[in-house]
Amino acid sequence: MSMFGLKEAEVAQLVRAVLPDAVDPTREEIEEIFARTAWSGIVEPGDGVAGELIAQIGAPAALRALVDQHPAERIRADHDVPLSIAELGSAIERWKPRLSATGSLLALRQAARFGARLLVPGLPHWPDRLDELGEHAPLALWVRGNLGVVDTLDRSISLVGARAATGYGEHVTMEASAGLVDLGYTIVSGAAYGIDGMAHRSALASKGLTVAFLAGGVDRFYPSGHDALLTRIVESGAVISELPCGLPPTKWRFLQRNRLIAAAGLATIVLEAGWRSGSLNTAGHAGDLGRPLGAVPGPVTSAASSGCHRLLREYHAVCVTTAAEMAELAPLAEHSAADERRPPPDHAATRVLDALAVRARRQVDDVAARSGFSLADVRAVLGRLELDGIVHHDERGWRRLT
Amino acid sequence: MSMFGLKEAEVAQLVRAVLPDAVDPTREEIEEIFARTAWSGIVEPGDGVAGELIAQIGAPAALRALVDQHPAERIRADHDVPLSIAELGSAIERWKPRLSATGSLLALRQAARFGARLLVPGLPHWPDRLDELGEHAPLALWVRGNLGVVDTLDRSISLVGARAATGYGEHVTMEASAGLVDLGYTIVSGAAYGIDGMAHRSALASKGLTVAFLAGGVDRFYPSGHDALLTRIVESGAVISELPCGLPPTKWRFLQRNRLIAAAGLATIVLEAGWRSGSLNTAGHAGDLGRPLGAVPGPVTSAASSGCHRLLREYHAVCVTTAAEMAELAPLAEHSAADERRPPPDHAATRVLDALAVRARRQVDDVAARSGFSLADVRAVLGRLELDGIVHHDERGWRRLT
Repeated sequence: MSMFGLKEAEVAQLVRAVLPDAVDPTREEIEEIFARTAWSGIVEPGDGVAGELIAQIGAPAALRALVDQHPAERIRADHDVPLSIAELGSAIERWKPRLSATGSLLALRQAARFGARLLVPGLPHWPDRLDELGEHAPLALWVRGNLGVVDTLDRSISLVGARAATGYGEHVTMEASAGLVDLGYTIVSGAAYGIDGMAHRSALASKGLTVAFLAGGVDRFYPSGHDALLTRIVESGAVISELPCGLPPTKWRFLQRNRLIAAAGLATIVLEAGWRSGSLNTAGHAGDLGRPLGAVPGPVTSAASSGCHRLLREYHAVCVTTAAEMAELAPLAEHSAADERRPPPDHAATRVLDALAVRARRQVDDVAARSGFSLADVRAVLGRLELDGIVHHDERGWRRLT
Repeated sequence: MSMFGLKEAEVAQLVRAVLPDAVDPTREEIEEIFARTAWSGIVEPGDGVAGELIAQIGAPAALRALVDQHPAERIRADHDVPLSIAELGSAIERWKPRLSATGSLLALRQAARFGARLLVPGLPHWPDRLDELGEHAPLALWVRGNLGVVDTLDRSISLVGARAATGYGEHVTMEASAGLVDLGYTIVSGAAYGIDGMAHRSALASKGLTVAFLAGGVDRFYPSGHDALLTRIVESGAVISELPCGLPPTKWRFLQRNRLIAAAGLATIVLEAGWRSGSLNTAGHAGDLGRPLGAVPGPVTSAASSGCHRLLREYHAVCVTTAAEMAELAPLAEHSAADERRPPPDHAATRVLDALAVRARRQVDDVAARSGFSLADVRAVLGRLELDGIVHHDERGWRRLT
């Protein structure tokens, strides 16, 4: 194992502490997970060379090569990676200074302290949609909140916009977010002031599911003025970052965070944005990914809408004015047919189990909110799990048996 | 000559009285013009069967066949027209009741009384752009105002919108019309209340050229509340209809008038329109003709903008927010190069001569406004015409020599 010479048992314990409860990792999986944790602290988000190298030879082997200070020529010769010596060499130079066992351990400990969970490709709850980012896909994700809600990203819409929102923009966002919740969508956004915050708030007010992607570690909420809002999102939704705990947001990390928002939603909607709003960057990522892009028009006399009009003119965004029109960009399976809505049984069982606790009892509506399923679906799954002796319920609610 | 048995000399005199001054028609041309006048009173605007028949065998022959009560079978056999006996027969049935010599004479006399001029294809000032309507092209046009301005339709933009305009819509229209005038465009619209009226008014206020297409004869202005506005348009611009004098507007004629507005402009812009605004009909015509279509967005909370948003969503209209963006849809030749702007000399001479009178003297800026040329162009043309002994000027202004 390539673990900087750390004790294997200690690493395994730290990793297990942050994995989803249902996951019982093999030794190889722990090595993979730890290596990805280490890589997350070494590279900046979206590092395509790291993405390519890890995709080609695996995170542990790539980490070993870096720890053992193999030169670019040797890595190329050993593994036949499709990267030039020049780009690999310059990447190694920027990675080396950040190579540290302590960083990874601190990140894992900090995550455990905040109850954050670690998701990696191939293990439960990993949102496969993000892999469409190719070599720019995140290496790992840290989540605070409900893992069942992460699973609902496959029926989410990303609502973004300017921090400097007007009353008009906030009103439109409130209506859109509440309307999309009613239509069964999870609301994805970036927790910024203005439009983002309103998108989350309105989803919460409508008892909907919402996911916030942050540009820094999930141990420290940003912006600090949204601390209470993000705490509420953790309760019923999920707060996600690809950055290990302890790392602060930066300009670059905000831009890269935007690619995750664009990749997560079935569609991205820009609700209000000025000519140079950062939300146009999110829109650009959505376009690059081939995700449907919508923009809400506003008065042409309002500079706060000029970015939306720019998207309509130059990016061929679709003009959307209501939640129903936004939903048209990202059709879900037929809502009325309950059968079609129901996910595969094992998948559903995992999500419902994640929404339950061993020591606390939870009501069905709470479990439904946490898992992202309808009440009827949750009742059906709970009934089956009870028959299997995996869950138990009494008059105070449902709990998971160990 | 097929003139309902009218005296040829009388008809010739009536026709000459309404033709542009520079036109000296042959006997055949008078017959053609009179036949088109008659047809204009017989068919409703946009009658495709009449358009097809006249295109195939000429207006005089078609009129003769109708006057002589030839059955559809005979017309088909005589002329090999690409129309079925059924459609030709039913067309003849609807045309026959309106066949009247008196109507044509009254229309000509009324036009002369109001100083209206008659334009027909092939003679000066006919706007060739309208022929792109194919069998639905107008058979003739009646114009009150400046024929030189009719010639500027080849650098016009059509601005349309709802009668029930808001302050926002009127503001946007005012800015758009004034801005497009500054960029050298002639403003085309339909003289209705609301957006149309504001488009004309703002063009006039900016000393620009503007053309109003009416749905009834130009002898009676509609709506009557825009009588003063239309009178002002006649002074420096042009008021045009395909309907002979004496005929009132109808619902159908409004819809057909819209096709002329769409065909006249290089592009059509809808500035503010509700979900069922008649201006969407104009937009549909522009789309059918392949003319660029722009729509100005507004607040999604305003029902008065919902038609514009519908055009952006469903008709792939281009989102336009400024006059400059509207102009991008209808690029003119380079403005800065005066040479490129200058039309061919003989064409320019005709337009400048039309803008002059024999008995009255006019200032250069007046001639420029009437002809639709720049002051520099008008001075150049007047200088050449003076050398040729065709015009004369003294300290009181310019006049045309007979």
